[in-house]
Amino acid sequence: MIMPSTRNISLVFKAVPKGMPIPGEHLIIEDRPIDLEKIPENGLVVRNIYNSLDPYMRLMLVEPDTKHYRKPCTLNSPLRSLAVAEVIHSSCDDYPIGTLIRTSLPIAEYSVLSREDIDMASSSAKVKTLPSSTTLHPAYYLGPLGMPGLTAYSSLFEIGKPRPGETIFVSSAAGAVGQIVGQIARLQGLKVIGSAGSAVFNYKEESTLSALQRLAPEGIDIYFDNVGGQTLEDALACMRKHGRIIVCGMLSQYDSTSSTDTSQSSYGVKNLFRLFSQGLTMRGFQVGMRDFGPKYEEDFERDMGFWIGEGKIKAVVSEVTGIERGAEGFVGMLKGDGFGKACLRVEGSGVGGGDGRELFRRI
Amino acid sequence: MIMPSTRNISLVFKAVPKGMPIPGEHLIIEDRPIDLEKIPENGLVVRNIYNSLDPYMRLMLVEPDTKHYRKPCTLNSPLRSLAVAEVIHSSCDDYPIGTLIRTSLPIAEYSVLSREDIDMASSSAKVKTLPSSTTLHPAYYLGPLGMPGLTAYSSLFEIGKPRPGETIFVSSAAGAVGQIVGQIARLQGLKVIGSAGSAVFNYKEESTLSALQRLAPEGIDIYFDNVGGQTLEDALACMRKHGRIIVCGMLSQYDSTSSTDTSQSSYGVKNLFRLFSQGLTMRGFQVGMRDFGPKYEEDFERDMGFWIGEGKIKAVVSEVTGIERGAEGFVGMLKGDGFGKACLRVEGSGVGGGDGRELFRRI
Repeated sequence: MIMPSTRNISLVFKAVPKGMPIPGEHLIIEDRPIDLEKIPENGLVVRNIYNSLDPYMRLMLVEPDTKHYRKPCTLNSPLRSLAVAEVIHSSCDDYPIGTLIRTSLPIAEYSVLSREDIDMASSSAKVKTLPSSTTLHPAYYLGPLGMPGLTAYSSLFEIGKPRPGETIFVSSAAGAVGQIVGQIARLQGLKVIGSAGSAVFNYKEESTLSALQRLAPEGIDIYFDNVGGQTLEDALACMRKHGRIIVCGMLSQYDSTSSTDTSQSSYGVKNLFRLFSQGLTMRGFQVGMRDFGPKYEEDFERDMGFWIGEGKIKAVVSEVTGIERGAEGFVGMLKGDGFGKACLRVEGSGVGGGDGRELFRRI
Repeated sequence: MIMPSTRNISLVFKAVPKGMPIPGEHLIIEDRPIDLEKIPENGLVVRNIYNSLDPYMRLMLVEPDTKHYRKPCTLNSPLRSLAVAEVIHSSCDDYPIGTLIRTSLPIAEYSVLSREDIDMASSSAKVKTLPSSTTLHPAYYLGPLGMPGLTAYSSLFEIGKPRPGETIFVSSAAGAVGQIVGQIARLQGLKVIGSAGSAVFNYKEESTLSALQRLAPEGIDIYFDNVGGQTLEDALACMRKHGRIIVCGMLSQYDSTSSTDTSQSSYGVKNLFRLFSQGLTMRGFQVGMRDFGPKYEEDFERDMGFWIGEGKIKAVVSEVTGIERGAEGFVGMLKGDGFGKACLRVEGSGVGGGDGRELFRRI
């Protein structure tokens, strides 16, 4: 059964993009065959089922010496992201064949994990076995029950400190993190702006400032920022006394902030003055930081499992089918073409992938 | 002895300045005589000794309908600030003649306080009796032992959470608040940049960014921001992981932020991206807010009294002599001509005031 060299279609980082990456130029599909006869002793071979497509990955497509945020992706190597994969060869008693695991993996058909890979994975990429009894779609473990869910949950409670009766504004509210934030906040008794569950506006049709003035004439207590730039400026203008700003991402700035060089064309926020005139707190984080993911993981799994199980939180997950469409799907996610949590369905590749009509399919 | 109408030279807010106020145009000296025969029952007449000159007062010289920060000063009325004054007439048993008090008073020679004024003063302006046994210069109660000291102390501990071995950068480090922050931080075992007690640089000769890169090549853990704008941008670029930014003031922006209108020419900060890439906290405050002055007042009085008494903290206080020079002194303080805590010596007015050579005199 085991072939000396197995085809392994992979999504490879080929060149550093300026601005939006171009499929076929910066990100390409290549066969990176693996030798399944060289399975490490005490290791695993897994077949990727889903790879996550996340905005933060854009920040890793930078020059190798760029010093900020995360370690840049290695040029000429496959992109990596969190993935759900099935164990197809195993010499580890704790991971029998057929086990579904979640961990950080190359975006490829197959991956090999040594014992060291399994044991050394950092907290945010540690190997988790999915419950065999789960009734949830496996992609849920990359979305509401995965990193985006934990990101939303931990930062909302750690920074936002939501109180019943308060008003929260969530930008990019239909995104993987935003959709969860809005729903948790509503469960806590908050008025939610930007979330599909409550007052909504379309930022393409109405400025954030005028929408907030219309929907929250008394101002907002919490701003969950996924966008930065002008949206942050407008939200600042509407913050009430003692408000909290959760800086989760700055999607509007990702193409212009590939380094700490501020001469680039990123947006300059002018009204930070409001921070002290209103006594605001503004805090950024990454889910792997000590006060966030690690601190809240246990509570998160219990609460989100319960909320999803009870139907109190519904999450939208959408997929691109076929690894051949991976680059296109990644760029589509960055442009907001997807809905909810965007994933790449790796299985199904080689059989044409997708239905040829739309990029994302809701699952 | 009591005259039907007594001369009462006052510093009056005459017109809203655009940019730096101009003495004689926006701020003028006028006699606002008071009738000392109309002393309220159960009230006080006090003679001002010192009035504080503080940057925040600039923000109150705005159009009457401006909605931000504090209530604007009333046009055609005297400016108000914290003052040390001596009781010269009293019908209150608890404030005998000769008592020195500290509270918010008009910048004028004399003030009248009703019982209501005494009892209703807000927490940051409440009437405090100075200890009759004090050996400290009365102006100290407006500086290191007053509002600037409490501002420094409460925000450094509440937001900065200083830990031994960390590095703090204080902008406007020779100012009333900055000088205290730097010295407290040094007592806590921090490396201080910008404070006269440790590594110093002159921002007029070297950019903040290059100075910080030179003096703190490993980066800074805490930034105490009195300045905003470009200085904040540079400090952001140098913040280490989990750093804290204490937004105390934004002196560089006061002329351009008389409202929340961001179309004005205030500086746009471009690298807020660092907030989440480094997991930074940025928090603004005013000393009267619940988590600051009120929460820390007791600890502050005990610790600062001890530190000043032991000579562990030395504070520079400087004065402008004579109320006739009040407007000039206020503008000089805004321009950084003073050193340490700037005060206006009200007594001495009418006798020529000052030595005619320099605006501020160290006391």
